Amino acid sequence: MTISQRRQRLRERLAAAELDAMLVSDLVNVRYLSGFTGSNAALLVRVDDETPVLATDARYRTQAARQAPDAEVVIERACGPHLVERAVADGVRRLGFESHVITVDAHSALSRAADGRLELVRAPGTVEELRMVKDAGEIALLRLACEAADAALTDLIERGGLRPGRTEKEVRRELESLMLDHGADGPSFETIVATGANSAIPHHRPTDAVLAAGDFVKIDFGALVGGYHSDMTRTFVLAPIADWQREIYELVATAQRAGCAALVPGTALKAVDAASRQVIADAGYGENFGHGLGHGVGLRIHEAPGINSSAAGTLLAGSAVTVEPGVYLPDRGGVRIEDTLIVGDEAPESLTRFPKELAIV
Amino acid sequence: MTISQRRQRLRERLAAAELDAMLVSDLVNVRYLSGFTGSNAALLVRVDDETPVLATDARYRTQAARQAPDAEVVIERACGPHLVERAVADGVRRLGFESHVITVDAHSALSRAADGRLELVRAPGTVEELRMVKDAGEIALLRLACEAADAALTDLIERGGLRPGRTEKEVRRELESLMLDHGADGPSFETIVATGANSAIPHHRPTDAVLAAGDFVKIDFGALVGGYHSDMTRTFVLAPIADWQREIYELVATAQRAGCAALVPGTALKAVDAASRQVIADAGYGENFGHGLGHGVGLRIHEAPGINSSAAGTLLAGSAVTVEPGVYLPDRGGVRIEDTLIVGDEAPESLTRFPKELAIV
Repeated sequence: MTISQRRQRLRERLAAAELDAMLVSDLVNVRYLSGFTGSNAALLVRVDDETPVLATDARYRTQAARQAPDAEVVIERACGPHLVERAVADGVRRLGFESHVITVDAHSALSRAADGRLELVRAPGTVEELRMVKDAGEIALLRLACEAADAALTDLIERGGLRPGRTEKEVRRELESLMLDHGADGPSFETIVATGANSAIPHHRPTDAVLAAGDFVKIDFGALVGGYHSDMTRTFVLAPIADWQREIYELVATAQRAGCAALVPGTALKAVDAASRQVIADAGYGENFGHGLGHGVGLRIHEAPGINSSAAGTLLAGSAVTVEPGVYLPDRGGVRIEDTLIVGDEAPESLTRFPKELAIV
Repeated sequence: MTISQRRQRLRERLAAAELDAMLVSDLVNVRYLSGFTGSNAALLVRVDDETPVLATDARYRTQAARQAPDAEVVIERACGPHLVERAVADGVRRLGFESHVITVDAHSALSRAADGRLELVRAPGTVEELRMVKDAGEIALLRLACEAADAALTDLIERGGLRPGRTEKEVRRELESLMLDHGADGPSFETIVATGANSAIPHHRPTDAVLAAGDFVKIDFGALVGGYHSDMTRTFVLAPIADWQREIYELVATAQRAGCAALVPGTALKAVDAASRQVIADAGYGENFGHGLGHGVGLRIHEAPGINSSAAGTLLAGSAVTVEPGVYLPDRGGVRIEDTLIVGDEAPESLTRFPKELAIV
């Protein structure tokens, strides 16, 4: 699917919602619909015009022309209000806006620009819904991102990168460097390396804590390739392993398989969460799994759909999602195992392929 | 100043604005006022209670207790609405909220939680105004961040890191690695390395473009230390240098000195911008300097005050700001020179100290 086809899908949705146009303010959505990656921009997509209007400021004059050759580029620092005025001039009567992105103050500025000449209509998540289903180009980039992460972790383990005496920060640095070696543009989010009791903190930032014999080492990381994010968690044990570690590792591994197996198009998102969570609850560790099972991944590290106990909606074929149950025992240690997968009509395809068997290093 | 003193300053401002409390939703503001760094949080600061209420979700239970020991921590995924209910329960009548951060949809959720029992009052930029003036602890971290960047760039040049045949991406990678060697937690934003004609793009992302003799190489980068960002740009020439390059380099250097000299407390922000911009305009290159002169820097890479031609307000002693004029000649090349400085009652102190004399490497 080309970028122009993405806009065509949006225009069909707008028409169905009786909107004449949409003001896209979220920068990731602007990128998805135009190719432009600058830090100040908005995009006006009109139902009856194939050419979108991209507003950005003077810093990005050259870049906008290069990245969005099929858009009309206007240079204007106050992108949103300017495009509202443009919409008025173009005869737009009902203009959708991203009410989940636009702040209360920014909305006031849009309203002043509209000055009663058009109706600003809440259209939250419209572009994010399109983004849930990945096209072939997106999956190709996600695949590259996941491969870079797989290859980096493989290298790290093969060269003995996880060993007593190293710090969490040292491991992070080597892993991130290896991702660059394997073609990543950078890490896709702040790499988590958590050793020993730190592994019980679901989102731990690497410190100077030293890896020690008998530690769990939880590594949650990803690569960024062409704007697309991979996301994977593996938990290792530095020998010797204790019985409680083996128990919760195998439990989380079982729960993770159950979650992956539940990735069937049409399944309620909360049922996917429950399929994995129940395994952990049945073993008596329900209280130790305090976060959702997973989330969509793409141009953002966290995007729709969320897979958790309060999620509405069902799973769509073509979505890219994570499955990442965990069990965390405060002050002792924790395990999380996570893959990034593509939901398909057949079994889901895991783009992250690093082995998940218990590894004592 | 301790974090508790920061909250005390906020409470004084709230009282002056006849607010009973403030709901802080911006995560950087939450960090500034509590020390907590998680990715989902909100903070309730009440005028008549020294203990703030920090809401976050279960992932951060351990981290919140560690990082914000003097806050009351409540675990609740919907942080904002929960704290509105808490404010109601605590008898708050007028609750400030961050209308420059809260989205239209999030505001609806807050209103539903309030259910007419308290008034939600716009209080945009309240915490950002406090953050404009850095306390000693903040300046110490900014200094470390700037030193890490200085040291990394010095190493890069000394080891011949800028030479024909390397790619922009290779230079970026080495520079970022060197920053880690010098104590950075990471880069403070996406490092810009722009060679040849790419240097005419103010915000260029590193590519596989190869450095060549006669190129400008513009490097805009910074280090992150303890949450604080440094920001510095230097532009080098790969020998041989052409006359036009020498001309615009010296012009930008002169304009940058003029901008730094204008950093006097009480000066109108737009006058600071003009002091530097006029130098470039007088030389006939006004059209080739299409961005603002600078910005505040701290817990964010871009924060208040903005220094540009449309900025309101005046410069405050204790602010940390950048001064970064540039001249960009499309398809030929460009120069930007940038420092991070602390505004003081005496001359401003530049925290970035890498030499600014024309360097032909």
